[in-house]
Amino acid sequence: MRTLNDQLPFILRRENVARYEDGTVVIGDRREYPFKQVFVRCASVEEVAQAIEDMVTQGGGPWVAAVYAMAMAAHQIQSKAVQEQRDYLDAARKRLVDTRPTNTALARQLARAMAVADQALSEGQSAEEALLEWIESSRDMLYDRSAKVGRYGADLIKDGDGVLTMCFAETSFLLCMAFANEDGKRIRVYTPETRPYLQGARLTAPSIHELGIPVQIITDNMPAHLISQGKIQIYFTAADLVTLDGHVVNKIGTFQNAIAADYHQIPYFVFSLGPDPGKPDRASIEIEERDPAEIRRCRGMPTTIDDIDAYYPAFDITPPHLVAGVITEYGVLSPFDLERFFASTKLL
Amino acid sequence: MRTLNDQLPFILRRENVARYEDGTVVIGDRREYPFKQVFVRCASVEEVAQAIEDMVTQGGGPWVAAVYAMAMAAHQIQSKAVQEQRDYLDAARKRLVDTRPTNTALARQLARAMAVADQALSEGQSAEEALLEWIESSRDMLYDRSAKVGRYGADLIKDGDGVLTMCFAETSFLLCMAFANEDGKRIRVYTPETRPYLQGARLTAPSIHELGIPVQIITDNMPAHLISQGKIQIYFTAADLVTLDGHVVNKIGTFQNAIAADYHQIPYFVFSLGPDPGKPDRASIEIEERDPAEIRRCRGMPTTIDDIDAYYPAFDITPPHLVAGVITEYGVLSPFDLERFFASTKLL
Repeated sequence: MRTLNDQLPFILRRENVARYEDGTVVIGDRREYPFKQVFVRCASVEEVAQAIEDMVTQGGGPWVAAVYAMAMAAHQIQSKAVQEQRDYLDAARKRLVDTRPTNTALARQLARAMAVADQALSEGQSAEEALLEWIESSRDMLYDRSAKVGRYGADLIKDGDGVLTMCFAETSFLLCMAFANEDGKRIRVYTPETRPYLQGARLTAPSIHELGIPVQIITDNMPAHLISQGKIQIYFTAADLVTLDGHVVNKIGTFQNAIAADYHQIPYFVFSLGPDPGKPDRASIEIEERDPAEIRRCRGMPTTIDDIDAYYPAFDITPPHLVAGVITEYGVLSPFDLERFFASTKLL
Repeated sequence: MRTLNDQLPFILRRENVARYEDGTVVIGDRREYPFKQVFVRCASVEEVAQAIEDMVTQGGGPWVAAVYAMAMAAHQIQSKAVQEQRDYLDAARKRLVDTRPTNTALARQLARAMAVADQALSEGQSAEEALLEWIESSRDMLYDRSAKVGRYGADLIKDGDGVLTMCFAETSFLLCMAFANEDGKRIRVYTPETRPYLQGARLTAPSIHELGIPVQIITDNMPAHLISQGKIQIYFTAADLVTLDGHVVNKIGTFQNAIAADYHQIPYFVFSLGPDPGKPDRASIEIEERDPAEIRRCRGMPTTIDDIDAYYPAFDITPPHLVAGVITEYGVLSPFDLERFFASTKLL
């Protein structure tokens, strides 16, 4: 039987995102994709943290790598006293949280992992085994939720639509495209390359191409022009974070595409599993700034001389009035109704 | 005495844009700048045309290289009969016009060059000498006009302003920045890198830096975010073409920055020597599409695999309602009043 995993392009298949193997965490190296299909093997929490910071993985990858790092840490400390194990795991959790200040989903998953380990230790069980069991069921659930989200997204697409995206919107988006294609809708996808890391050119475009759907890469300065030409009818992205009041934090560039879409009356939809209950509003968002030197390079090639200063905010914030809907596993929600919806259904 | 030329950064000094030397056209190679200061020497019209097509020079460079190519052609054909010289020069003109379909200023300058050559030939004079004299006086006049435009621009800037630009807005913009700086206004400039050719990162940022003005490069997906952060108060670009009804054609990305500026109530000003009288409106604009393979490279480095399709419109069109003013040598004009202004003053 063809599973959901089989429907996904290479880079999103579970085993290629990250896996726990021989007491190490093996992470699919998205920096090398699509030029090479290689993996980074990490033998310590610090190595996993470094790998996340070095952008070996991104999007939905870091939390998977991080929780496997927790399982690896549990394994490495298993012979010690329970309190020592707890302290060690909590230090590991903190180190891993620090790798990504903007994407709070990582911190929340690590808090859940810590609770799973605590529970196992308090019951005299193996924290490693409890973590691995929890990780696999979490991943199953996440793929199922992404499929629901992808299904709602596919239903928003009309035959003949041009689709704009930004960065690499991961499983929900790729399943959305796969479902729309299976439904017989003829779609074309435009992926801005997404400087400086080129996730659009390197990850999204090859993944869409792998699904057999027509795709063209463009540079990040082109979306508004393509919309004005009538090439684009719908804009989808993932979100690194959605606040309770409907602000969308995502890869830098998402916001200016949303402004351009709004200007041309094109709807912008966001894939999200739900808002972060700890993030009420715009003021609560911390935007990660990365090393400006990364702006002066493109896959290692200098784009200017090193004397020139640069600025690198990694994310931007799209306000709710530019968002046509937040596509969740419960349907397409108004960004203005997220807090009530998730509070009333006790889902947060 | 310090001349206007001395105030300009390296790449914009007359001798470094293009020059006529030993019967050849020597063109400053903007593809290699700022990594190397090198020149391409062309011994035929075809070599100059190829150099323009290969992006050796851009912005205000192509017309200079092209009219020197006309002088070189006049030299090479000077021993022939007058009609043969005319035919040869007209064929050269056509070949050079074809190098840039969007920037009609090149075609207009070449038409003027042809008229100068025709006049000289009809009077039994050397077309080469007449062309060289006309080119030098045209360049003098152009620098003077750019200085006037730069002066009007500088007066629009307030102390402490953050300035956004796009691509490489050439002499008018650089003089504008130099004048504002000399006036004691503390300014900061943000230059989007301008993919795929990186004119912002390679040409604009080093030129601003050379003037001693603080400058930061950003990627092309960042302008809206910086505006939302309050870092930018004014947006300036050059224009490859302005239509009589005030549409601005400029490097791809100009339009989406203008939308983002408008969304945040930041004014957008365009440097221009005036509209093209042969271009009444948007429908009359031809947008040059370049080889999609160029999108899959960044300074030669692949950004994705060659299987992936790409799309490369080189320019976009900003409608007049997004333009706060067109800065000409006659002052800051409304984009809606260009046709009347230039017709009434018989300046077109």
